[in-house]
Amino acid sequence: MKAMMTKEMTLHDFFLHELGDAYDCETQLTHALADMSAAATSPELKKALAMHLTETKAQVVHLDQVFDELGIKAKGKHCAGMAGIIEEGKDALNGIQPASVLDAAIVTIAHRAEHYEIAMYRSLITIGDTLGLSQPVTTLKMILKQEEAADAMLTSLGVGINKKAFAETPVHA
Amino acid sequence: MKAMMTKEMTLHDFFLHELGDAYDCETQLTHALADMSAAATSPELKKALAMHLTETKAQVVHLDQVFDELGIKAKGKHCAGMAGIIEEGKDALNGIQPASVLDAAIVTIAHRAEHYEIAMYRSLITIGDTLGLSQPVTTLKMILKQEEAADAMLTSLGVGINKKAFAETPVHA
Repeated sequence: MKAMMTKEMTLHDFFLHELGDAYDCETQLTHALADMSAAATSPELKKALAMHLTETKAQVVHLDQVFDELGIKAKGKHCAGMAGIIEEGKDALNGIQPASVLDAAIVTIAHRAEHYEIAMYRSLITIGDTLGLSQPVTTLKMILKQEEAADAMLTSLGVGINKKAFAETPVHA
Repeated sequence: MKAMMTKEMTLHDFFLHELGDAYDCETQLTHALADMSAAATSPELKKALAMHLTETKAQVVHLDQVFDELGIKAKGKHCAGMAGIIEEGKDALNGIQPASVLDAAIVTIAHRAEHYEIAMYRSLITIGDTLGLSQPVTTLKMILKQEEAADAMLTSLGVGINKKAFAETPVHA
């Protein structure tokens, strides 16, 4: 990694930087979840992704409120991590067949996206706690709970989806 | 997402595809962990990252063994997700000052990388279980435990690192 311009930052600046990252992350995910939900063929998976899409859209609004509480304008900062995960997902979604294996692929990519977000919110909460930002932390904890619930739902759906995919493609290499 | 060539895949093919992804992911991470460990200033964080770098190098060897057990040549498949997370990290590492805030930034990016891997290995284990690949699953579970331990260590270190960063930059916006 090459040295570039030094960025003087307080921990509070870094918190805002990460909040902007989360904002962009959720915005990117609304598009990706819509694509994944449209591509999924398992009705349960389709429904779970659509439900989480609704939650994700609300999370963008909640993050807006957090920016508001901090007295600054909501502003996304390009999240290269989520962009990479979505690129990874596009590769999987682009025509994997049969549908049961495509569903298994969608579960794995959605898992990665959720886990990335879980790590992101846990860090934001720890830093927000240190900074004494109690109201933003309360909102971030609520969002984190939704991400953890979405992840748990994917885990639970994944087992049946993988079984179906194996039953339909019972070939070993 | 535009339609491209259809890829006929069994669940076993998809498992191998994901294994190639994990292989590339760990290889990318060996370089990133070396950079993060070099940039960190907290002695505990530096040590934790260096320890996990040693583990990560061993994980590449373990993944080689998994490929071997499956009778195929180890082959990485570019993992865009991890590449994005590392790009995100480079942005943070490029000169954040003071050192205490840089350390806080390193913890958050390492967290994201570990969580991404945790999701990846959990999916691989669930699919491997479905496919009845008991030996590869045992190795993958061992690697997953190391990732979870690295994540827990980062969580534990993060609290003190954030407190130090706040003490040194006590400014609110």
